[in-house]
Amino acid sequence: MNFLKTLKYTWNFLIKTIGYAMLLLVIMALVFWYIWRPMKIAAYEPLHPEHLAQKTAYLEAIANASTTGKRPNIVLINFDDLGYGDLSCYGNQLIQTPVMDSLAAQGIRMTDFYSCSPVCSPSRAGLLTGRFPKRAHAAAHVYFPNNHPIADYRKMRNLTNEIPKDEILIAEILKANGYKTSLIGKWHLGDLEGYLPNDFGFDHFYGVRYSNDMIPLHIYQNEEILVRDEKQLVDNKFPYGYYNMDTPITGKATDQTKLTENYTQEANNFITRNKEQAFFLYLSHSFPHVPHFPSARQNGRSAGGIYGDVIEDLDWSVGQIMNTLEQLNLMENTLVFITSDNGGDLQGSVGHLRGRKQLTYEGGQRVPMIIYGPSFVQQASVTDALATNLDIYPTLLDLLGIAPPSDRIIDGKSILPLILGNGTSPHDFVFYNAATGGNIVGVRDSLYKYHEGANGNHLNLFGSFGIATNLSSQLTNLRLDNEAHNLIKKYPEYAERLKKVMEEKQGMLVENQRGWK
Amino acid sequence: MNFLKTLKYTWNFLIKTIGYAMLLLVIMALVFWYIWRPMKIAAYEPLHPEHLAQKTAYLEAIANASTTGKRPNIVLINFDDLGYGDLSCYGNQLIQTPVMDSLAAQGIRMTDFYSCSPVCSPSRAGLLTGRFPKRAHAAAHVYFPNNHPIADYRKMRNLTNEIPKDEILIAEILKANGYKTSLIGKWHLGDLEGYLPNDFGFDHFYGVRYSNDMIPLHIYQNEEILVRDEKQLVDNKFPYGYYNMDTPITGKATDQTKLTENYTQEANNFITRNKEQAFFLYLSHSFPHVPHFPSARQNGRSAGGIYGDVIEDLDWSVGQIMNTLEQLNLMENTLVFITSDNGGDLQGSVGHLRGRKQLTYEGGQRVPMIIYGPSFVQQASVTDALATNLDIYPTLLDLLGIAPPSDRIIDGKSILPLILGNGTSPHDFVFYNAATGGNIVGVRDSLYKYHEGANGNHLNLFGSFGIATNLSSQLTNLRLDNEAHNLIKKYPEYAERLKKVMEEKQGMLVENQRGWK
Repeated sequence: MNFLKTLKYTWNFLIKTIGYAMLLLVIMALVFWYIWRPMKIAAYEPLHPEHLAQKTAYLEAIANASTTGKRPNIVLINFDDLGYGDLSCYGNQLIQTPVMDSLAAQGIRMTDFYSCSPVCSPSRAGLLTGRFPKRAHAAAHVYFPNNHPIADYRKMRNLTNEIPKDEILIAEILKANGYKTSLIGKWHLGDLEGYLPNDFGFDHFYGVRYSNDMIPLHIYQNEEILVRDEKQLVDNKFPYGYYNMDTPITGKATDQTKLTENYTQEANNFITRNKEQAFFLYLSHSFPHVPHFPSARQNGRSAGGIYGDVIEDLDWSVGQIMNTLEQLNLMENTLVFITSDNGGDLQGSVGHLRGRKQLTYEGGQRVPMIIYGPSFVQQASVTDALATNLDIYPTLLDLLGIAPPSDRIIDGKSILPLILGNGTSPHDFVFYNAATGGNIVGVRDSLYKYHEGANGNHLNLFGSFGIATNLSSQLTNLRLDNEAHNLIKKYPEYAERLKKVMEEKQGMLVENQRGWK
Repeated sequence: MNFLKTLKYTWNFLIKTIGYAMLLLVIMALVFWYIWRPMKIAAYEPLHPEHLAQKTAYLEAIANASTTGKRPNIVLINFDDLGYGDLSCYGNQLIQTPVMDSLAAQGIRMTDFYSCSPVCSPSRAGLLTGRFPKRAHAAAHVYFPNNHPIADYRKMRNLTNEIPKDEILIAEILKANGYKTSLIGKWHLGDLEGYLPNDFGFDHFYGVRYSNDMIPLHIYQNEEILVRDEKQLVDNKFPYGYYNMDTPITGKATDQTKLTENYTQEANNFITRNKEQAFFLYLSHSFPHVPHFPSARQNGRSAGGIYGDVIEDLDWSVGQIMNTLEQLNLMENTLVFITSDNGGDLQGSVGHLRGRKQLTYEGGQRVPMIIYGPSFVQQASVTDALATNLDIYPTLLDLLGIAPPSDRIIDGKSILPLILGNGTSPHDFVFYNAATGGNIVGVRDSLYKYHEGANGNHLNLFGSFGIATNLSSQLTNLRLDNEAHNLIKKYPEYAERLKKVMEEKQGMLVENQRGWK
């Protein structure tokens, strides 16, 4: 009987141990969710006071400097998810974009231009700061509406969910220099009070705070809601789910069929209001990001379907802006940039390139860039000069003769000589930044690309099944091949050299992430 | 005190309940693993006796029929994972394949030819039976070595892991008709005794039983091991892991640098041995499937790197076969087919197409097809006629005047008139079969493709995150676009018509999966 008693005792002990272990797990989960997580979120603070002071001093110095001559107007048109092959001047055979084709034919069409990230917020952080998105802790994929669980997750990990106040945006510099500045369209660099377009150098803001598939999609005029989006997703399993055309909703939704037209109208109004003085118009279209809502005028007209309609709406919009500039006699003194924040998404064309948005393959980061400005572009051309959207910031400083901030690294380089026709690319190399994390995972020169896998994307899933392991690093010929054939064992020294360039850049980026001098 | 007692009792009850629940889960897992699973595997039986008898009768009838005239030799060269853009005659700019280019220039080069599956075993089941891979329960991705856990998994789900004996393979028909038949290279339709090449109509077999990344990779001569593969993976976390060039191994491995040469030598020997009589050579190369081992002769020579070396080895091999046919004066009476079992894998070029192996996008199933035969092809041509590798079976029957088996559906259609120059494609439609499951998820006509997502692949992962939901069905223009722009809402009736064609075919395939008449 003693044996049976021991057995019973042991058995009870075992069962109870399992029970207590499970209970402990539940308690730990509760502690994590209700105590540790809110503490982490509350402690989140992306601000760096010393450099905020230096920023203030820098902007004051610009404001106090005397400026001479009539400064050029800048129109920076940034599409959302426009793919490399989405415009007819970049080879699309279904979609017609005659306006942009014509600007390209009279200006500079770049074939080897890159966004600094294969996704949205990081690319915009880079565009407006001239610095790698990782510098602003802004490279962990896109910002989410502030009450979204992923926004919490970002904060728990000490990643920003709004651009830090100590960053100096190009709009702030131009405003200090006396420009009238406007953001029309999508911001996507934070939706908290104090981190909105008007807080970062834009005199005027009309548009949306983030992507058009995020909810709610209010339209703001400066910081006031002009159009309230009241849609609720039906059968929404996730509290802040994605939204597309087929999603059942209740409540009145912001009418996205009018987005492009409204942005265009507002842009024309802004130009007209400021025709007498220098202005900076950052026209940041919501399309062709999903969901796709063509205008009533265009709906059904493009041979490229709904996506084509949306692109042709955008081409119409560019035409309207050009007409306004023409009618107001401003064309002579205006420089226009037309580009995209990242490569084409699943419905977009990436032309002949491999990969899409999210990926560090060419299709994820290579985007159209058309530069138009009759007084600036001396010679119409198609160029394969290397450049990225980090270059626009230093190019504008160069154009205006403003010294860059001295307390921080600017990663972009001026392509002004290229625009003016008396220079080549300032880049020996272009770097590829992973969608998630912003680490540099690739580098190219004029011919070859060294690429260490496609971080943060589906290929990693394949990789983790052991299928694509030899993709972990590859050297490809970008002129004669579509990133298929790995030449790393054929040209090991070449690969090693590019790898070293990449690792040095990545090392510097990690060592001094914020890039303070 | 009574309350405390109740509390203690309740508490103990709670803890014990949790403990017992966990214990029950463990017991259920053990029952599943050690009892239910072995029972399911043991009960696995793909055979269908009635149709096995009909098969025997059919083959006997062929054997007993009188044949007249000299029958043509058939050389069917099937590469493993050769991509649409891997040959220079299909646009590759790094890899040079002058032999195949020359055959293409003198023969028929098909631009719109498809494998019947985007992965290996299903495609081969289809090629050799002329029927959709799902008919043989062979469409749930690839067969695995018989002691591999995935082979067990297949059996548990009543999917075959070897081609059922009741299927009639083309080699069996040709053998019955008096041909000498040989499989040289990769079989991959089963590795159990009774389900090997010699059991399915091949007089002679030299090669490997499955893919060259599977272990062990013995080289067989008929059913005997000629070269024993003794490699063991070092640090192998999974008992039957994948193998590639960088995997640390111990033990002597089959020398894959000699695979292509050995296959070629054996093929030439087979041709020479049978020069006096009709033969069927199914030369089923292991390459360019991973891992990539170029020959010592070719290593480092291709501008396309190691992958290019491997492809150029294959071109050399085709040249050797052609030389032999030439020297033996057999060319006049030989018909040569050169194709691939599915689209390019991650290192292969898919040309301008979207997607790769595993996917039902064009890049997954559209493959090269070169048909060469001076006495058969009257007019060299490049054709966009629709055809698939299911068509080779009925084409050969047509060529020999053999009636197809009457007890089963043959899904392919003869393209003999097309080869002889007096006919067009027999297909109004080509269907796309998912890598996992073999369901028909797409259909194309000469211009448009209707596609319901990319079943069984990474896009589904994206889809399950809600990112690509509008990819669930699309209509694309295959001439003017690269499967980017969805035209389903532009041409709803067209899409509906194609969808109906697809659903009817899929319905018939599910209703009578084995295709018995």
